This record gives sequence, structure tokens and C-alpha cells, in this order.
Amino acid sequence: MDALKRKIREEGRVLLGGILKVDSFLNHQLDAAFLSAVGVAFQELFQDKKVTKILTAEVSGIAIAVLAGLHFGVPVVFAKKTQSLNLDPDTYEGEVYSYTKKQHYKIRVSKRYLEEGDQVLILDDFLANGEALKGLRQIVDAAKATLVGAGVVIEKGFQDGGKKLREEGMDIRALATVTSMEKGDIKFL
Amino acid sequence: MDALKRKIREEGRVLLGGILKVDSFLNHQLDAAFLSAVGVAFQELFQDKKVTKILTAEVSGIAIAVLAGLHFGVPVVFAKKTQSLNLDPDTYEGEVYSYTKKQHYKIRVSKRYLEEGDQVLILDDFLANGEALKGLRQIVDAAKATLVGAGVVIEKGFQDGGKKLREEGMDIRALATVTSMEKGDIKFL
Repeated sequence: MDALKRKIREEGRVLLGGILKVDSFLNHQLDAAFLSAVGVAFQELFQDKKVTKILTAEVSGIAIAVLAGLHFGVPVVFAKKTQSLNLDPDTYEGEVYSYTKKQHYKIRVSKRYLEEGDQVLILDDFLANGEALKGLRQIVDAAKATLVGAGVVIEKGFQDGGKKLREEGMDIRALATVTSMEKGDIKFL
Repeated sequence: MDALKRKIREEGRVLLGGILKVDSFLNHQLDAAFLSAVGVAFQELFQDKKVTKILTAEVSGIAIAVLAGLHFGVPVVFAKKTQSLNLDPDTYEGEVYSYTKKQHYKIRVSKRYLEEGDQVLILDDFLANGEALKGLRQIVDAAKATLVGAGVVIEKGFQDGGKKLREEGMDIRALATVTSMEKGDIKFL
């Protein structure tokens, strides 16, 4: 998606530790019109998949997923990171490893909102180590639903999450794949 | 908003402890088309306010805010609950009291994304004790921006947050105000 690459080049900031900051439009401030175009791009990529449900994880997947849901015309569900009064006790669970916090945490979806027969598309903002996608896949598997693919806005191609998950058969499409960010110079596939 | 009242009546579940669960469309599963109509309703209510920015808090305000942003044609910013590598160190802060956890926590917005001169509309899913709106107002004040109003999808009219904040001069509009939920029978203003 050329408009995305342009936006990353113009607004992205490369920080120490391999962090690509795109919080001007993707995960803090949100550019709704642009993220709606991102949703259209996902819809075009996965239009032959008969998607019945979009699944993402809180927090930063929500804006992308709900705008994509508008174009797919299917319900969106976001997995929750905390058990709260607002979450049903009966849930499907996945486990995610946090590299920054060096610990595993659970993500959960109420059994009401995912079922056998669902054709699930996972959407997320970033793909690096693939931990979020793995946790979300566990939830799809637990529900005996079918995972039809995963769409990510930005893949960090120099980390190996995408490679491993594709080898395991996951159909992952990235709208932009960053191959290097050395000295702040962002290069794409 | 009649469609919202119908949806709450049809899909809402009243749980012990005064909890109104609307997680089939508002804060776990998301009905994107419906929430887009919610965004249009907010746009109609606040169209004379020259809104330049929409502000909400993670997690459950994000979907509503980004869809509203699409109709207002302005950037959306969501305040973050956790300090993370992805958040600038230089932030405006607000404090929110959690009645369930019985403790205060901070919400933060990067100073990059809110500025003096901004005409800010706060949006959120629920208004009960008004804690989230108060924390978000602190952020607007800290940025020396102007708070033009607050829109909430559902106000619990039997809790006093809305009353207090309106007395303090906040222009709050609720798309549906629940006046009682006794024995699971949801009544609206």
C-alpha cells in the first residue's frame, strides 16, 4: 500500500531498540480517514475468503479492525487483556509473551462471540515476533472456528515472527513490510 | 437515538451490581455499521462546535471515537493507561478513580497530539460516576485546549457523574440515558 509507505516515511520515527513509532496516525493519534483506506485495502486482499468475523486484540488493533469491519460488513471482536466485570466468565483463551515485560499474559474472548463455522480474519497493527497473532490463533482454534488469514498494517521483516507463522501455514498479508531501519532510514520490501 | 435504545433493549443484559452489558455491539464485539451511525449522531449533536480533535480513553472509547472521527473529519487521540515504550515521555496527564479496583490510575496523552487552540470533543462509551470524563478534562486543561463538550453513548442516569459534571459547566450529551434497570427492565429517560 503506497500511501501507507509514504505516511510511514513522512511521519514515522525510529527510536533506539528497534522501535518504529507511528503514533501520529496508527496507535495513539488516529487518522480515521486513512485507517478507513487501510480497511479497504484489507478487504481487497481477503475478499475471496468469505470472512464472517474479524478478530483483533486490545488496544492498538481496535481502530483498524472496526474500520475494516465497516468495509467487510462483518462483526469485529477484540480479545481482552484483563479479566473484568464486563467480560463473561466463559471465554476462549490465548497466551501472549511480552518481550518488553518478559512474561506471558492471557487474552480472552467471550464464547458468545466466536463459534464453530466462523471464518475468522485476524487483524493487527504490527507483526514483529508474532506473539499477538499466535495468541489470537489459539483463541480461533479453541472456538473450533476457521482461521482464513491475518492482515497486519506493518510487518517488521527483520524479525522472524512472520516467517515462522507462514511456515506453519498462516496466510499473512502485510500492507507494508519494513526490511531495515538503520540510522533512522526506513526501507521497505 | 431510538435505534440505540432498541439495541440496548434487545441485546443488553443487566447483571448484579448495576452492570449493563452491551458487549454484543459496543465494547467487546463491535457492530461497525451501527457504531458508524453512532458517530453520525454525535456529529449532528456537536456540528456547531467547530471540533478540531476528538479525545477518548483506551480501551472501550476507541471504536466509537475513530468512527466518529470519520464523520467529523478530525484527528482522534486516545489517552493511554500504561506508560510504555510506545508513548512519548512528555505527556499531559489525567487521573481516574476506578471504583472496581478502588484506586487511582493515570491516563496520558503525548504533548504532540493536543495543543492550545484545539477545540476538543470528548467521547466515551459509558457515563456513570464521571471519572473517565474528569480525567480526560484534566488532560484538555493541561494542554490549555478548549473543551467544547462530551458525548457518551450510554449514560447511567441513576448515578450522579453526569449531574455533577453538568453543574460544573460541561456540555454533556448522551445518546441514551438509562434511568433504571430494576429486575432487568431497562427504562430510558
